[in-house]
Amino acid sequence: MKCLKNGVVQFDGSAYIGGYASAVGPKENDGRYGGKFDYAADSTDFGETSWEKSETFLQKTAYNIAMNKVGGKEGSDNCEISVLFGGDLLNQCAATSFTMRDIDLPFSGIYGACSTFAQGLLLSGVYLSAVDKTDEQRNVNVAALSSSHFCTAERQFRFPLGYGGQRTPTAQWTATAAGCAVMSTGIIPHGNKNNIHINGGAFGAVRDMAIKDVSNMGAAMAYAAYDSIKKYFGESKTAPDDYDYVVTGDLGLVGVGIIKELFTRDGVDTTNFADCGEMIYDIATQDVHSGGSGCGCSAAIMCAEFFPKLESGEYTRILFGGTGALLSPVTSAQGESIPGICHVVDLGIK
Amino acid sequence: MKCLKNGVVQFDGSAYIGGYASAVGPKENDGRYGGKFDYAADSTDFGETSWEKSETFLQKTAYNIAMNKVGGKEGSDNCEISVLFGGDLLNQCAATSFTMRDIDLPFSGIYGACSTFAQGLLLSGVYLSAVDKTDEQRNVNVAALSSSHFCTAERQFRFPLGYGGQRTPTAQWTATAAGCAVMSTGIIPHGNKNNIHINGGAFGAVRDMAIKDVSNMGAAMAYAAYDSIKKYFGESKTAPDDYDYVVTGDLGLVGVGIIKELFTRDGVDTTNFADCGEMIYDIATQDVHSGGSGCGCSAAIMCAEFFPKLESGEYTRILFGGTGALLSPVTSAQGESIPGICHVVDLGIK
Repeated sequence: MKCLKNGVVQFDGSAYIGGYASAVGPKENDGRYGGKFDYAADSTDFGETSWEKSETFLQKTAYNIAMNKVGGKEGSDNCEISVLFGGDLLNQCAATSFTMRDIDLPFSGIYGACSTFAQGLLLSGVYLSAVDKTDEQRNVNVAALSSSHFCTAERQFRFPLGYGGQRTPTAQWTATAAGCAVMSTGIIPHGNKNNIHINGGAFGAVRDMAIKDVSNMGAAMAYAAYDSIKKYFGESKTAPDDYDYVVTGDLGLVGVGIIKELFTRDGVDTTNFADCGEMIYDIATQDVHSGGSGCGCSAAIMCAEFFPKLESGEYTRILFGGTGALLSPVTSAQGESIPGICHVVDLGIK
Repeated sequence: MKCLKNGVVQFDGSAYIGGYASAVGPKENDGRYGGKFDYAADSTDFGETSWEKSETFLQKTAYNIAMNKVGGKEGSDNCEISVLFGGDLLNQCAATSFTMRDIDLPFSGIYGACSTFAQGLLLSGVYLSAVDKTDEQRNVNVAALSSSHFCTAERQFRFPLGYGGQRTPTAQWTATAAGCAVMSTGIIPHGNKNNIHINGGAFGAVRDMAIKDVSNMGAAMAYAAYDSIKKYFGESKTAPDDYDYVVTGDLGLVGVGIIKELFTRDGVDTTNFADCGEMIYDIATQDVHSGGSGCGCSAAIMCAEFFPKLESGEYTRILFGGTGALLSPVTSAQGESIPGICHVVDLGIK
């Protein structure tokens, strides 16, 4: 792994994504990518007795499907996972902790708000780069997992659902979704497909543009996304046209407008920019205001749209900038602004 | 890096701890290690206007002192940090996010409850192992940072301080403390001292012994500590007498009793076991019941006691098992038991 400036790393080409899966709720499956998710249910509780357990259920479902895809059954050595990087939006990352209680794996909890999936992919790439390949006679595997649930997030960050609170036009809808990727130092056979690999990425620095409106996360995160992606372009000597898409997750309509304006001022063409928050719902008909958000939103869209199209060869390179708003209800109640972060992952095929 | 089973990793000997610092409040400085901390104040608010800001202040103080020790001033390239792994106990890891707003560095947020400092050291070791040394003409540096604050933790996990709630005998006192370590692929000159390096460690798996008493974290975490440390002994083919101390952080009196009993049943000698929660206060006189806890407790004790004694040569090898209770107030209110985790770090001198 080469360590360039500004948190940018370049891997040595041995961080393959072997299997991946998404699991979503009904509203997400009614959106633009309906039918493309590995699992979708008709209710948002998934038969569980609390919203927190429902979110854990989504995580476990995504994990199990991803593991089945790489031929590793739970508890078997078929595809032993050396560490799972996982997190969610709940206080103390509780959805993931309770998932890991049932999935008996070495676990490193991470917190990056909605950037968690990108952060997990990036840490997985670092871990796999560290493996001494001359020493290992076997593939070393790791996993990244993240989730969000509309009902756990609303109560925690805004109001209990029963209040029927009005949402502002800039608000985003937290996706009820989870995504999991299983990564490996070697190629895990999975049919006649391209192998996705992680070329590198960038750990983001916190950027705070003094936005205090907790219903406008897109504005709070847009500059962090611009900052990290611009640094990655600079250090890696790439530009948007080196990628099929430069995908943020999840800026929503407001944030996308800002990041495009910032890059346009620099003379950078943004026509191939996309955003998971803009993609996951049909914004015109699903009453989600500025779009989707949540750790599960970009995780599910990567697993349902971008990873499959990399495997099929329709896309050859994607730059994924996972964005997170690092506020807490306490800090916002104390009058603080919202710090933003963006972790960048450079995905290609081999 | 060699990846053994059960989350155990062994680094290639290029993860040096170059500088480190601790910062604490008055009660901690009145404890058994008073005077050994790099920073201590007479009040717990450190002149800030909220407890959350006070905790952020502690983090920044520990970071700045650690950086000064390695000759890296804030904003200079003297000791450029490629990524900082940091976290705390607050919802959404808010103390760390706001620290990183002021410290302009690539940031990877982590959550391991009171195991966070051990987790940060371990991830730092992984990162430094990944660096291509043949390619780099310079040291690559990373940092680990964690904190806790009695007043933020009490309100969030238990009751507002003004309630004057009674504490049970098994309760631990969340330390008002922070610790920071700066690590490097190369030796950072720091006088005529031994160089501490991270030999390896283990990412823990979640263990839940069905403990539901949120005032008995020691009991909830003890089995996780036993499990991770036992696995590390097994995979690394070491035993307690290979180390000066096997240090957990923070089981407190109750948890220490349990882990010692578990190892004793296995015929393992536990005479050189120590626990940061048992160490940080004078339990007999400071009314802390079962001892100390919090992400800052083990961080401060490692930086004030074990790291200096490794550098001086008084100790040559320490096994550090950072323990975390991965509950949230919401999950406990819903009747869930407390999942525990323990990340292990094997520290030596070179």
